[in-house]
Amino acid sequence: MDMNNLKYYFDCVERLFAEEQFMGTPTELYAPIDYTLRLGGKRIRPTLLLAANALFGGREDEALGAALGIETFHNFTLLHDDLMDRSPLRRGQPTVYIKWDENTAVLSGDTMYALSWRYMLRTPGAGLREVLACFNETAIEVCEGQQKDMNFERRGMDEVRIGDYLDMIRQKTAVLLAGALKIGALIAGAPAGEVERLYRFGIHLGLAFQLQDDLLDGYGDTAVFGKKTGQDIRDNKKTYLPLRALELCDAAQAAELRALFADKVCDDEEAKVRRALALYEAVGLRAEVEKAIADEFAQAQECLSAIRVDEGLKTPLRELMESLIGRKK
Amino acid sequence: MDMNNLKYYFDCVERLFAEEQFMGTPTELYAPIDYTLRLGGKRIRPTLLLAANALFGGREDEALGAALGIETFHNFTLLHDDLMDRSPLRRGQPTVYIKWDENTAVLSGDTMYALSWRYMLRTPGAGLREVLACFNETAIEVCEGQQKDMNFERRGMDEVRIGDYLDMIRQKTAVLLAGALKIGALIAGAPAGEVERLYRFGIHLGLAFQLQDDLLDGYGDTAVFGKKTGQDIRDNKKTYLPLRALELCDAAQAAELRALFADKVCDDEEAKVRRALALYEAVGLRAEVEKAIADEFAQAQECLSAIRVDEGLKTPLRELMESLIGRKK
Repeated sequence: MDMNNLKYYFDCVERLFAEEQFMGTPTELYAPIDYTLRLGGKRIRPTLLLAANALFGGREDEALGAALGIETFHNFTLLHDDLMDRSPLRRGQPTVYIKWDENTAVLSGDTMYALSWRYMLRTPGAGLREVLACFNETAIEVCEGQQKDMNFERRGMDEVRIGDYLDMIRQKTAVLLAGALKIGALIAGAPAGEVERLYRFGIHLGLAFQLQDDLLDGYGDTAVFGKKTGQDIRDNKKTYLPLRALELCDAAQAAELRALFADKVCDDEEAKVRRALALYEAVGLRAEVEKAIADEFAQAQECLSAIRVDEGLKTPLRELMESLIGRKK
Repeated sequence: MDMNNLKYYFDCVERLFAEEQFMGTPTELYAPIDYTLRLGGKRIRPTLLLAANALFGGREDEALGAALGIETFHNFTLLHDDLMDRSPLRRGQPTVYIKWDENTAVLSGDTMYALSWRYMLRTPGAGLREVLACFNETAIEVCEGQQKDMNFERRGMDEVRIGDYLDMIRQKTAVLLAGALKIGALIAGAPAGEVERLYRFGIHLGLAFQLQDDLLDGYGDTAVFGKKTGQDIRDNKKTYLPLRALELCDAAQAAELRALFADKVCDDEEAKVRRALALYEAVGLRAEVEKAIADEFAQAQECLSAIRVDEGLKTPLRELMESLIGRKK
């Protein structure tokens, strides 16, 4: 069996989730958990965790608990985020607070968080403390990132600096990808310096991933991306796109952009999206954002190259990076 | 310094919380956590944990992280429970979802849960895995207990059996007291048999504690108890009192009790409370409940007596039990 490809680890994760039992009693508590964990998704975090473990020659069976744990934790954060953001749909299906109710979303979410610990605790060996500390500090950062995201919602466009935005997406998105990689490496017993390089690879990968998500909202093909273009503009979301555009604008353009992203600036939402996209076009935003993304990918590349293991073993992580570079959804 | 008294451990916990820093950034996330953890309360769980650790000759400094962790976890459950139960007050102060908002209650609660793990992870030594497994299985049971409690709210009086009710309060209340004791003993490196006996002591203590809470709602002195007598009756809460009363009633009395505990049975709430209490009186409920409580205390006593350590070391736990036996609030 060739393990030097991404699909091997992804298939392993799929099997892991297919075989795991998530139902329990009381069913009112566990049915939403089972529903959430069976909705699918890209399973990027556990796939990264297993690939990182293999990169340093770790035993696969020793990393399976942590793989289940990191994905269960990720899905817990989505469940509570959807409640807080009032998002009715996730992966095309009704979210838990819609399908059941708000209390169910709170308590089933809490229980998923506890279950993620049960899985993490399956990790054998003396390295457990370091693995759990990484998992926990990651969790705290994800919570802080979500709070910062909610804070930005209440602020005006000029009150959110690009540096703050990047710090927010680092905590909300990148640290969990980086944490998954680090945990996989720790379970394999990798040297501290290599663990640190892999973590930084994950941070840059995560930032690139989120910036790409922002870009796709403005320039994605609706049919492929699965979301309507310009939703962030309709929602006045202060993503990297308008924040970076503001830096590139002249005074008149900046005034228009601010007006567009102020609440209820126009009754015709489609006209609002068209005007914002025209402004982005006028300042050459797309190329700028693509440059920022390419820069993060290049830094990720550099971190990965610096890791001293057989280059062949890096293939799965390179494949993942390449699939993200070209992604249209 | 005499350590063979409860006050020593309580003072130690008070100092621990006074000296710990709970604030952080973003302040929107941490201010509600600091507020919640500084509201006070009886701090029973960390006090039990430290006393249990000392019972088996454990080092106090090695148990302080777990003491902070167990109380932080307990306060996290109160925070989310108050949100789910729509309780506006806790310890005489507005609850987090009232003072801030619902999203803050969700996310600050999640973060408190993560912080409780950070504290638990301060526990040194090789016994960490067992300590964390106990903490986590306890957390899962508390979630299951809360779900069962919410399920009971939706059911009629005849659909909740006493056995189910006792199982619910065991999970929602007793296992956390028992878990605190067990964790303290594990940190001290106590033998497995003794750990198990102390755990069972905690279960009986917790059941007695909750049954007493139920009793105080019907028979407590409002001025001392701090809550209005009969609130559970007004809320149609199917506690041990009405469930046990139903077993003691004749057919006519049972019909009246069921009618009283059905929704909106009368417009005059005070008359409803009076009628329920009169029914309780007629079937001799108070003595029956007191007997059930005394029985749990006796079983707790028995478990504690069976533990083979110097009797003097048990004084703090006996003091706690006695303070609970006579409690009026």
